[in-house]
Amino acid sequence: MTLHPMTEAASLQALLDSDLFAPWVRELGLKVDAAERDAVHLQLPIAPRHVHGGGVLCGQTMMAAADTAMVVAISAAIGGFKPMTTVQLQTSFLRPIAGDAGAARVTARVLRRGKNLVFGEIQISDARGQLAAHATTTYAML
Amino acid sequence: MTLHPMTEAASLQALLDSDLFAPWVRELGLKVDAAERDAVHLQLPIAPRHVHGGGVLCGQTMMAAADTAMVVAISAAIGGFKPMTTVQLQTSFLRPIAGDAGAARVTARVLRRGKNLVFGEIQISDARGQLAAHATTTYAML
Amino acid sequence: MTLHPMTEAASLQALLDSDLFAPWVRELGLKVDAAERDAVHLQLPIAPRHVHGGGVLCGQTMMAAADTAMVVAISAAIGGFKPMTTVQLQTSFLRPIAGDAGAARVTARVLRRGKNLVFGEIQISDARGQLAAHATTTYAML
Amino acid sequence: MTLHPMTEAASLQALLDSDLFAPWVRELGLKVDAAERDAVHLQLPIAPRHVHGGGVLCGQTMMAAADTAMVVAISAAIGGFKPMTTVQLQTSFLRPIAGDAGAARVTARVLRRGKNLVFGEIQISDARGQLAAHATTTYAML
Repeated sequence: MTLHPMTEAASLQALLDSDLFAPWVRELGLKVDAAERDAVHLQLPIAPRHVHGGGVLCGQTMMAAADTAMVVAISAAIGGFKPMTTVQLQTSFLRPIAGDAGAARVTARVLRRGKNLVFGEIQISDARGQLAAHATTTYAML
Repeated sequence: MTLHPMTEAASLQALLDSDLFAPWVRELGLKVDAAERDAVHLQLPIAPRHVHGGGVLCGQTMMAAADTAMVVAISAAIGGFKPMTTVQLQTSFLRPIAGDAGAARVTARVLRRGKNLVFGEIQISDARGQLAAHATTTYAML
Repeated sequence: MTLHPMTEAASLQALLDSDLFAPWVRELGLKVDAAERDAVHLQLPIAPRHVHGGGVLCGQTMMAAADTAMVVAISAAIGGFKPMTTVQLQTSFLRPIAGDAGAARVTARVLRRGKNLVFGEIQISDARGQLAAHATTTYAML
Repeated sequence: MTLHPMTEAASLQALLDSDLFAPWVRELGLKVDAAERDAVHLQLPIAPRHVHGGGVLCGQTMMAAADTAMVVAISAAIGGFKPMTTVQLQTSFLRPIAGDAGAARVTARVLRRGKNLVFGEIQISDARGQLAAHATTTYAML
């Protein structure tokens, strides 16, 4: 896949909606808002299916969104999707996001792109912009 | 909830199947195999919905299983569910698990139970027992 | 200890040089450059004692600087030192820093200050401003 | 360097004492107790220089010991030292170790050795065998 600058967000959305991702992951319903050279901004809709008994967006959903968003950010940075694999992902949960908050914002950023390894950071914020989850990750290009 | 020793695995399974967990997480279909004092052993069925385009179990599913399994392990250790929240979870992905491998094994273990914080470790292995993902985590009891 | 705004950097330097830190850690020679409300900026001199056989600043030194800088950042944020302990610290090493590069820059930032837990992030950059190490951490206030 | 099985612990000790490690790191005084195929056991003496104002072994020392021990474990696993670099290291601090506790035990274990990446785990325990720090790490072979 090669990304066309004029249609980059649409191309990244097509990537997100493709069977590169598992069906269960596509059900996150992530939407690409914008792409920069080394970062992408997405919306994560807060559906009732992702809300646990405590009434907040569950952490499992935030980790899945973080990992998925980083694939999109790396694809944006390298101009298209190439086979890659997550080496590790560390997530800290700073604040809960209420289950009726509408949508969370996910920003994934490539911090360092080496030949084999890519380092990144993901921030998930609530609708008011408060940081809810913060992840760092390493990917290996295959 | 208080756990009855004679029916502990069944009680933990009921916990897993309850609305304490988000519906999207319950779809993991985790099954409690056995419980020890500080650890639980679960099966994670590898359904096609959790397999990505590369033909392997997706990492998002493994992270979700790890986090979920730790809630079960902590509940087993303290004799029932109490409100808690994940502070952080770090997962390393050591080996892929083939999408047709049947089921993965998840072992979650409490390493240290403090008054406010609980530390744990989760191992996800393939059917042959090879370690595929290794996670460490901190929980806060609320 | 209470910090006086007019002399905040000096107060934080005094904290760094006090026996709150182990002698081996004080030998890092960290210098406080500036403090903001939720962040501190320090210099880490690259002494030959911290350079390994490969000719670069060793990772052990960067982790020690990251942990130490966060204590300073939290002290700045709360207006003085209070007993605290590191719960976890995750460091990614993005680029080596040459052993003759003079000094590295360390920025530690408080991302979220809760009642019991504080979340932070530390960036270590080389003299040209390139990110060399990136850490995230959780502290517990005692 | 090639390790000779009959003298493996001595060879690994020589590695530890060589200028592959920065002088500041060698001051940890780590001693190799024993080596297995994929793991090494070391002693970390608790010197006053590594004790902070709270009277316990400082976390910076434990992280430095963890990283250093993993280099030794990987060298043991591959039969000698080869150039490598730490990609990331995550440490959780479970319990303090008293500053007068004599020596801590450090076990570093290779969990997975791939062509380019090596995954490992490090446990630091007090003299009574209680787990004080638990680290996971990824190394890249250069």
